[in-house]
Amino acid sequence: MIQEDSERLTYSIIGTGALGGTYGIKLANAGSTVHFLAHNDYFYIKENGLRLDSVDGNIHLKDVLVFKESIDLPRSDVVCICLKTTQNMQLEAMLKPLVRQDTVLLTLQNGLGIEEELQSMFPQAIVAGGLCYLGANKVGKGHIRHEALGQIVLGVLHPERDSTAAMRIIADLKRAGIAIEFAEDLIKERWKKLMWNIPFNGFSVILNSATDKIIMNSGMKQLCRELMQELIVGAGACGYRIENEYADELIRLTEKLVPYKTSMMMDFENKRHMEIQYMFRIPLKKAKERGVLMEKVQLLEAILSFIDTSMVD
Amino acid sequence: MIQEDSERLTYSIIGTGALGGTYGIKLANAGSTVHFLAHNDYFYIKENGLRLDSVDGNIHLKDVLVFKESIDLPRSDVVCICLKTTQNMQLEAMLKPLVRQDTVLLTLQNGLGIEEELQSMFPQAIVAGGLCYLGANKVGKGHIRHEALGQIVLGVLHPERDSTAAMRIIADLKRAGIAIEFAEDLIKERWKKLMWNIPFNGFSVILNSATDKIIMNSGMKQLCRELMQELIVGAGACGYRIENEYADELIRLTEKLVPYKTSMMMDFENKRHMEIQYMFRIPLKKAKERGVLMEKVQLLEAILSFIDTSMVD
Repeated sequence: MIQEDSERLTYSIIGTGALGGTYGIKLANAGSTVHFLAHNDYFYIKENGLRLDSVDGNIHLKDVLVFKESIDLPRSDVVCICLKTTQNMQLEAMLKPLVRQDTVLLTLQNGLGIEEELQSMFPQAIVAGGLCYLGANKVGKGHIRHEALGQIVLGVLHPERDSTAAMRIIADLKRAGIAIEFAEDLIKERWKKLMWNIPFNGFSVILNSATDKIIMNSGMKQLCRELMQELIVGAGACGYRIENEYADELIRLTEKLVPYKTSMMMDFENKRHMEIQYMFRIPLKKAKERGVLMEKVQLLEAILSFIDTSMVD
Repeated sequence: MIQEDSERLTYSIIGTGALGGTYGIKLANAGSTVHFLAHNDYFYIKENGLRLDSVDGNIHLKDVLVFKESIDLPRSDVVCICLKTTQNMQLEAMLKPLVRQDTVLLTLQNGLGIEEELQSMFPQAIVAGGLCYLGANKVGKGHIRHEALGQIVLGVLHPERDSTAAMRIIADLKRAGIAIEFAEDLIKERWKKLMWNIPFNGFSVILNSATDKIIMNSGMKQLCRELMQELIVGAGACGYRIENEYADELIRLTEKLVPYKTSMMMDFENKRHMEIQYMFRIPLKKAKERGVLMEKVQLLEAILSFIDTSMVD
């Protein structure tokens, strides 16, 4: 429940990795109450605190409100979900003790369909989503390196009802120095982000290459454009109209980007399972339900699924 | 010119690798006159001969008619082209001293469009092609290991005119114990072979996997089927009607095949350039000229071209 009496909201960060660490540390450093959930690093963080080496300035958070189990987390207004989506099968049980009437569930994860799943698990919650453009890595126990970018595009699943809650979160994040933008249409923004994520995450793993090599290759650049085009058609079938020019814009942006290792490539290199379900399969399913076969996206999905399965062998 | 006075034809083998070695040694061992062109192994073969360790029995050919330059090769009835197609830019110059009126140019290479290129380079030649189903490797200087299969499907570019020449070659190859079949429609057979080569060569490199792992993965099996389907449409547009059932047959065949490393995978592992031009780009071009975009084939081509370019970096 949003505490109307206090200016600031309280936060719980589910997953103190690169993503949850960067934003949680910044929020706490700016004076918000932030509870961190950490498994492997729990004892280390309890003793040594959290460190963020950030392009925006370094922070050492000494006394961290850190917890090992979600059931021990104090009540918070906003529960930020910062796990990899490959762990989402655990979400319902983890979040259950934390969700009351009007608790905000803010997923900062990649992909499509997460907000809808959260809302159906917890009808009493306010569901929000943030699209994070963040270059950060966990470099050691309780130690995050934030190397580039950091902006969030944030929206709510039911804007007509829940925009006030979104605005209060946005105010807190701004106070923490985080560049943030309100998305009128969160799910449309998710489709737009997929237009980048699907080609570049996919090909970075398949080709074992950072974005610069992919975009500099004319055949691959053309393919990326075609994948983006398929996604525009898929999004359109689902009711989200994206202009063709947006694909050109993404191509230009990527051409100017510093050589960038995608999150999926980092997962692959670290032998973690890849986020294929929410980034590929759910968009494919949603488009297919509306009669659109995104055939090239499907081809990438099959290749990545094969790689993901082989990885654990 | 086919020597009508002698029962047997004489042969020159251009490229004494796994392919040229296996068939050339078998022919010579069965009594045909066979001249071998060898670059790197020339001196070794001259001194030590050629060895074939074959599932059909081992052969040590002691006195080998081996030559270092094509210009030194004696006149032969049949010039067998056994190089990788990645070297085909050298073919015209290499073959020029060897081709007279009615010389048979027999390409045993993989892919599409080679016969047409040979015919336009050498209008005076009889152009033949053989589709080889051969599991063989070069294991050392002048030393080939033939591990499985070995059959050839052989045809001529102009059957109405040149079938007699084909039949004489077939007779020689049969005498050498090589399973051989006459193709009424050589180019149609090439499209049919592409239906296997494109998915399995392509994915074996992209997924770094032998055929068994690919075919056992349900997503990949489905994709292979879809690629075969595209090729049926492409072949159809070019005037070669292939039944849909042939795709099912290839899938079943591959399911039963022993784990098989494709030739493109072997090239990739040995850091040789891959045969993308004749196996992917020319079929794509021919279909496109008839208005058919084989989009999934195109996607594989772009990925493989990227990999091929990166390989040399």
